[in-house]
Amino acid sequence: MEKRTLHTVLSPRLLDLYTLSDATIVIIDVFRATSTIATALSHGATAVFPVADVEKCKQLGAELNAITAGERNGQVIEGLLHGNSPAEYPSTFIDGKQLVLTTTNGTKLLKMALDQGAAQIITGSFVNLGSVCQFLEKSQKNVILACSGWKDRFNLEDTLFAGAVADQLSEKFAMNCDSTLMAKQMYQLHKEDMTNFIRNTSHWHRLKAFGLEKDLEFCVTPGAAEVLPLYNPKTAALTAAAIS
Amino acid sequence: MEKRTLHTVLSPRLLDLYTLSDATIVIIDVFRATSTIATALSHGATAVFPVADVEKCKQLGAELNAITAGERNGQVIEGLLHGNSPAEYPSTFIDGKQLVLTTTNGTKLLKMALDQGAAQIITGSFVNLGSVCQFLEKSQKNVILACSGWKDRFNLEDTLFAGAVADQLSEKFAMNCDSTLMAKQMYQLHKEDMTNFIRNTSHWHRLKAFGLEKDLEFCVTPGAAEVLPLYNPKTAALTAAAIS
Repeated sequence: MEKRTLHTVLSPRLLDLYTLSDATIVIIDVFRATSTIATALSHGATAVFPVADVEKCKQLGAELNAITAGERNGQVIEGLLHGNSPAEYPSTFIDGKQLVLTTTNGTKLLKMALDQGAAQIITGSFVNLGSVCQFLEKSQKNVILACSGWKDRFNLEDTLFAGAVADQLSEKFAMNCDSTLMAKQMYQLHKEDMTNFIRNTSHWHRLKAFGLEKDLEFCVTPGAAEVLPLYNPKTAALTAAAIS
Repeated sequence: MEKRTLHTVLSPRLLDLYTLSDATIVIIDVFRATSTIATALSHGATAVFPVADVEKCKQLGAELNAITAGERNGQVIEGLLHGNSPAEYPSTFIDGKQLVLTTTNGTKLLKMALDQGAAQIITGSFVNLGSVCQFLEKSQKNVILACSGWKDRFNLEDTLFAGAVADQLSEKFAMNCDSTLMAKQMYQLHKEDMTNFIRNTSHWHRLKAFGLEKDLEFCVTPGAAEVLPLYNPKTAALTAAAIS
């Protein structure tokens, strides 16, 4: 049997160069949307609704009587209740609740993947690396690792996570893709030293100004929030899925 | 004095995210447009006219009584005289002549940079790495290293060349750019083993099917064709420029 393929997309701008209709798309926004989504779901949130803009966030939050969350430039957006920090979602707070989340990069990319006909969408970050890899291995689909980047530019933290997935799945998939080869090698180069290396990235410099260093360290901690966030187009929500 | 900035653009699709109006743009298409351009100019071609399509190539070639060149899928395009291989342009053939060249990726990107208001455009590949670095160091402008990729996808050989430039100029420029940091590290990882590593790339696999292995080895040989191809918007041609 021919191996399934795995590709890495380094910016939302490049997503339409790839075939999404037979693939599981992994939305990656390590700092911090997809880390926060995994954290909320692993702490008992019943659903996370990713929305692309603030108005939609407020409206849906009111409709569902859900927690609304979103930041711009490290500040909670006016009219929303919470921010993008995974630290804001311990189980004592989020268990049994629904969360409506808007972010700069990750939620936008998820919407793009949906519009471009993705067969299946999940979200991934280091905190749920194990669950993502298990799910992809067992699924019958090709894989697209889709990095959110920062305002369409390449970023390292999302690339390193793509590399971590490629590293774990390298025997299972055909990876004839320069982006994947690069991501895997960058991950292998830095896997023992992730929190130090990540301090060199542009995103770290941007967020640490807002006092978010602890957040960022959490976001690159493998296994800190193992769960498989699977997007359901009918409900427009991510929920924790069983990996079978 | 504040340091000048250097950014790396990993795909033509990302070019408009960067400020080109105060920068020297280095067009990079290692396999093989910018290697061939350097080779032709270093062997005495008086000018290289990069054009985006075949019809323009034929028309301008007839007008100028110049050599026309272009390939698609490893074959010389019907109606043109020569291919994209640097080996086709020894000084015994190209000295004193003009060349009109159309390629899949590199000439398209050069046109984009021009349309988007680039202050200055040069071309680079490993074969003229030294000249490119000397020129950028002496110029007063910021630098954009623009990778052509393959049909807008990321590729490794262009990224490695960007990394080689960043490596040589790291003291001279501010490089707060994740793409540049990645490119530099990938170059440092593979600089002693370039011709072997490059055999893992997708482009190598694509071109070696056409028997072009020798070409590809030449294209990653630093200093094999030292010259500085500078684009003149008035003549729409690249010519060998003095580095002063």
